[in-house]
Amino acid sequence: MTLPAAQRRIVLAGRPSGVPREDDFRMETAEVPRPGPGEVLVRTVDLSLDPYVRGTLTGRDLGHPPIAPGDLVPGRAIARVVDSGAWVVAETGWQEYAAVPSAALSPLSVPQGVPRTAVLGALGTPGLTAYSTVTRMLRPAAGDTVVVSSATGGVGGVAGQLAALAGARAVAIAGGPEKCRIAVEHFGYAAAVDRHDPRWTEALAAACPDGVDGYLHMGGGAVLDAVMALVAPGGRVVLCGLPENSNEVGTPAVLPAGLLMRTRAIVYGFVVYDHEDLRPRFLHEVGGLLAEGRLRLLEDVHEGLESAPAAFRGLMSGANLGKTVVRVAHE
Amino acid sequence: MTLPAAQRRIVLAGRPSGVPREDDFRMETAEVPRPGPGEVLVRTVDLSLDPYVRGTLTGRDLGHPPIAPGDLVPGRAIARVVDSGAWVVAETGWQEYAAVPSAALSPLSVPQGVPRTAVLGALGTPGLTAYSTVTRMLRPAAGDTVVVSSATGGVGGVAGQLAALAGARAVAIAGGPEKCRIAVEHFGYAAAVDRHDPRWTEALAAACPDGVDGYLHMGGGAVLDAVMALVAPGGRVVLCGLPENSNEVGTPAVLPAGLLMRTRAIVYGFVVYDHEDLRPRFLHEVGGLLAEGRLRLLEDVHEGLESAPAAFRGLMSGANLGKTVVRVAHE
Repeated sequence: MTLPAAQRRIVLAGRPSGVPREDDFRMETAEVPRPGPGEVLVRTVDLSLDPYVRGTLTGRDLGHPPIAPGDLVPGRAIARVVDSGAWVVAETGWQEYAAVPSAALSPLSVPQGVPRTAVLGALGTPGLTAYSTVTRMLRPAAGDTVVVSSATGGVGGVAGQLAALAGARAVAIAGGPEKCRIAVEHFGYAAAVDRHDPRWTEALAAACPDGVDGYLHMGGGAVLDAVMALVAPGGRVVLCGLPENSNEVGTPAVLPAGLLMRTRAIVYGFVVYDHEDLRPRFLHEVGGLLAEGRLRLLEDVHEGLESAPAAFRGLMSGANLGKTVVRVAHE
Repeated sequence: MTLPAAQRRIVLAGRPSGVPREDDFRMETAEVPRPGPGEVLVRTVDLSLDPYVRGTLTGRDLGHPPIAPGDLVPGRAIARVVDSGAWVVAETGWQEYAAVPSAALSPLSVPQGVPRTAVLGALGTPGLTAYSTVTRMLRPAAGDTVVVSSATGGVGGVAGQLAALAGARAVAIAGGPEKCRIAVEHFGYAAAVDRHDPRWTEALAAACPDGVDGYLHMGGGAVLDAVMALVAPGGRVVLCGLPENSNEVGTPAVLPAGLLMRTRAIVYGFVVYDHEDLRPRFLHEVGGLLAEGRLRLLEDVHEGLESAPAAFRGLMSGANLGKTVVRVAHE
């Protein structure tokens, strides 16, 4: 590859309050980084946008260091090593070229017939989140009702399908009629409830006539309250992701202890970083399901690095549909 | 046995608000009940007082029907069948004689050398509560810190000892210096914290320098908040008993969802009625520990049926020390 004289990178311009705005970010022109000892230069191809980035912006994500205004926005990507052309997965951040430690690169490995970007979603950390919450915590049995919020997102789309494959009746909570349609038609949820509908809690109760045996919660407190009211005795509830990775600025979500006792629910605080031990089994099983066409992907692909701030705003405001990927280069 | 012409029974006089008062109950003289078809007459010997009775008084216990003013107060007891003299465990209620279905009697079975009243406490439902929360939920590993509230009560005293036998460091929360002394000297807790001390939360933090890996919660929201602030990543928290079985009238206890996510705690709503399947294993294991002298009992015995209302008030106000039993007859 021939290297350009300069590259583009996106830095944090200010600290977002609530849903990040496009002007919380700033595009810069910068020199192409020079790899130091033990580093290689990679070219970003497909950049993954993920909610954890919201946490790094306010300095409170558990797995990543905080960033300050002027810093490069972090991000994981499919990339190519400039010298060798090798395909890798790397922490490039939101930029066209990155100097990354060789030791931190993973070779890109995708099951035959599966799009490479699956490694950022269903075969990446969002997929591991879905797999570990379903297998370790929700543990759906045949006939169980499993509710998934943010049901068509990078985590939810996989979780709903895994629950259904385990024999459960998966019920989607999603924002808007289009997402509800996709939930049922594309991801195979038995029912979908539009949380923008003013009578959505009644619709949820109607969709779960035998109560809720498992609930994968991502998002806000109002949704949590509505689902908790339907939890069946012994139901499993997973609170997924850190609250700092959401935009919530109002009253934080709380669980009434009395309700937990009456329902004998089990509530799990979940952070995916604790479940790395499952990754090999996850890659084997979910990779197999994808290769066999038994698990479906949905990607929300945005063209060009310049589209990242708007795409991230979309992700954090619920405007995305499926796993958000920014195509930084065409390779 | 010769039957008296009349017996004494205690009925609900009014619905308690907060801690039950003695005048919420009324002693009556009544006829000795006449057994119907399939029933036998039993004489109450040792009556167990338990917090679940608080729930039946307000009609909200899961395992027992509600009672109304004028109704006999429910209760489990060691009793003797009048005709045969056989020792049994039965639901007699707070009265001297009861007609009970033969099918609902259990023969009294106590390991050699263990006081018979153990079947109401450490070998009864309080003990099953302790055993099932420790083995199924708290799952203490060697070196774990396990905190028990109401640490010297019928449930807590057993739970603390079972956690210590599993190799954990058991830390007691109890009300008053006398209970704290008993917790350490009699039950073998590694440390005890007096929640009546205004600086008790600091003492708790000092007693749990590596955080709290397991917490058996019984009681009020303020204690829950203080322990949750110390929960270690992956800590197990059991909310034991129904809130209606406590006297709490103020703001109900709540768990902040964000805290659960940050700590990756697992919170279990627990009601003992779900764990009857464990009873045979529990009786075998805990019976063995009692017979070997490896598990210690502590009983709070009150003399005479007339002492039941004051003893129940003591139980519900924290004045009890150990399992509360009323000796109704000397046999």
